[in-house]
Amino acid sequence: MPIISNKAHNMPASPIRKLVPYAEAAKKRGTKIYHLNIGQPDIETPEVMLNAIKTSDIKVVEYSHSAGFESYRNKLAQYYQGFKINVSGSDIIITCGGSEALSIAFMTCFNNGDEVIIPEPFYANYNGFATAADVAIKPIRSTIESGFALPPISEFEKLITPKTKGIMICNPGNPTGYLYSRQELEQLRDLVKKHDLYLLSDEVYREFCYDGKEYVSVMHLEGIDDNVILLDSISKRYSACGARIGALISKNKGFMAAALKFAQARLSPPTFGQIGAEAALATPQSYFDKVQKEYVARRNFVIDALNKMPDVVCPKPSGAFYCIAKLPIDNSDKFCQWLLEDFSHNGQTVMMAPATGFYSTPGAGTNEVRLAYVLNLEDLKNAMECLAEALKQYPGRSN
Amino acid sequence: MPIISNKAHNMPASPIRKLVPYAEAAKKRGTKIYHLNIGQPDIETPEVMLNAIKTSDIKVVEYSHSAGFESYRNKLAQYYQGFKINVSGSDIIITCGGSEALSIAFMTCFNNGDEVIIPEPFYANYNGFATAADVAIKPIRSTIESGFALPPISEFEKLITPKTKGIMICNPGNPTGYLYSRQELEQLRDLVKKHDLYLLSDEVYREFCYDGKEYVSVMHLEGIDDNVILLDSISKRYSACGARIGALISKNKGFMAAALKFAQARLSPPTFGQIGAEAALATPQSYFDKVQKEYVARRNFVIDALNKMPDVVCPKPSGAFYCIAKLPIDNSDKFCQWLLEDFSHNGQTVMMAPATGFYSTPGAGTNEVRLAYVLNLEDLKNAMECLAEALKQYPGRSN
Repeated sequence: MPIISNKAHNMPASPIRKLVPYAEAAKKRGTKIYHLNIGQPDIETPEVMLNAIKTSDIKVVEYSHSAGFESYRNKLAQYYQGFKINVSGSDIIITCGGSEALSIAFMTCFNNGDEVIIPEPFYANYNGFATAADVAIKPIRSTIESGFALPPISEFEKLITPKTKGIMICNPGNPTGYLYSRQELEQLRDLVKKHDLYLLSDEVYREFCYDGKEYVSVMHLEGIDDNVILLDSISKRYSACGARIGALISKNKGFMAAALKFAQARLSPPTFGQIGAEAALATPQSYFDKVQKEYVARRNFVIDALNKMPDVVCPKPSGAFYCIAKLPIDNSDKFCQWLLEDFSHNGQTVMMAPATGFYSTPGAGTNEVRLAYVLNLEDLKNAMECLAEALKQYPGRSN
Repeated sequence: MPIISNKAHNMPASPIRKLVPYAEAAKKRGTKIYHLNIGQPDIETPEVMLNAIKTSDIKVVEYSHSAGFESYRNKLAQYYQGFKINVSGSDIIITCGGSEALSIAFMTCFNNGDEVIIPEPFYANYNGFATAADVAIKPIRSTIESGFALPPISEFEKLITPKTKGIMICNPGNPTGYLYSRQELEQLRDLVKKHDLYLLSDEVYREFCYDGKEYVSVMHLEGIDDNVILLDSISKRYSACGARIGALISKNKGFMAAALKFAQARLSPPTFGQIGAEAALATPQSYFDKVQKEYVARRNFVIDALNKMPDVVCPKPSGAFYCIAKLPIDNSDKFCQWLLEDFSHNGQTVMMAPATGFYSTPGAGTNEVRLAYVLNLEDLKNAMECLAEALKQYPGRSN
């Protein structure tokens, strides 16, 4: 039998999916599970998007341009201009989700064995794309004590080697919900300029910034146009994760020409997703206002509830719809499995993501979990009740 | 400015796209272009597929399972069973087009620097996926004189080194239209078994087999279940190239488990495409009968017209909707460019793909072009008239 490649062997399995068999078994026993484990929002996709797909009068579902519909790219540029991100349609390649944008960016920027520095905890799938592209992620630790603020630049400097070719961030952050300040981003700008590094930024949660705090994009930073690669997706913005529409954006023309060759090899992004995404640009502001109000209420409730539990610490995030909580437990992998395998409260339990999956450093995150507050308030209330009760009963409680 | 990666630098540009600026200039001059250069069929997508998308009552466009809808995979397995391909839903991963199936297969099967043998001429984008996956394609020459039949196994044996990990074919073939016989495939079976190689087969044109000839899948071959990887796509079957729905199929459980990790990293295949693809399985046989009749008429017309032109040779293909013709010209790249830049006949010209882009061996295919007979008979008639006239006028005629 022919064997699989080393790359396939090293490819990380999704840290959340390890729990799926336990969740399925719990469901079979009749336990209701509150899913706080994945960033799949319950929010409805805008009608204007769905209607465009339903009323399309397409007869032949043709390949589109490899960079995506020209009409969509031009309108999307206007959308970015609304955030003072000065790009044109030719600075954009439409991709199959943010995932493909990331995958193409890694292959275009980095040689095999090159290093990219990423503040941890970070979105676990970055590991998969790095493995696929033969890139080494060098984690730099952000801490729950600082609310997951940018680590000191001096710590970045210590990690930079001749193999370091880029820094990557997620802003607002998954899994932390942290929103970088202009000052933090300007420090990163100076660093990437000094060492001539790529600065990749995953900003798919820009619509989810709270408390009037300012969203600063890496594309707002002056003097590093050729260093900056913006990764985007409509998945969260329009609650359209399954549409698989993302974007790769840069003012660096050499980068864009090279990225387009990867895009051409895979022919084109999905047509129906693009039809929807183009129409979704006309989503009324009232939709976003309502969604934002809903998420703020959910966040406030969840963060309050968590911090009221004895020995639980959870910094209040300013963006996205995740938070990381420190729990009085021995091991978050064991705890999350126990919640599904051995615990129920009034026939209910809660599923969360052990934070270990979001750290590269071995042993980090063992007493932290990530919660996605993507359920309605009533469900969140029940979920928090379950968690509070579980922490009382859990045999591996640490204090 | 940070530089692009070696991989990005080496990534081949699409051979057809080099001609696009000339085509655009010709259009601006008012010249009508008959596009025989790409495999974008003019056939309408089945109504049953489009209607399913238009009438879907989806409210939240969620991620699907990373391997695709379970319901779709199970029905798709039945479709394959209709071709005596004995698979179940768990042997299938739904991908974003055949492109992603190929990309995941390459990364799962091959280490950096491994070699895969592919009979040339072959589909040009295989080069892109090989470059992205750091795999070396070792071409083995099939000839127009043999109608692009499988080269002798002794020639394969000569190419096999310790780095050879697979053989890849396209059946029915793009760009040749050649349909491998059972005997040819059994020779390949014995070879991959002897050397324990993967046998990857791109069979996206299985609905396009003509003259009552038998379609034999690599999955029909006995005794090599663990070696065989089937790559598929609905793009051509339902004229739905833009839906971006393909599939990766294997009975090798270790391969499938590893491939699923790549699929999980990119989350899920497109939801709307899957809705359409699942519904398209109910496309009535009358649709395929009509399409097949149409393509046979087109093929017969084009092959006859080509072989009637002085010093033109074009074997009659038994499958797909392409043919490769040998022309009395000095250089097919120059000729195809000249057709767009310097030639018109009654205000019309024809765009074809120089066959050089389908060969890996330098200098091969310089007097060959690929034609996709994806236009209606009337347009094909005009296109062949243009080509006949062009061959009379072309200053680089070789005899």
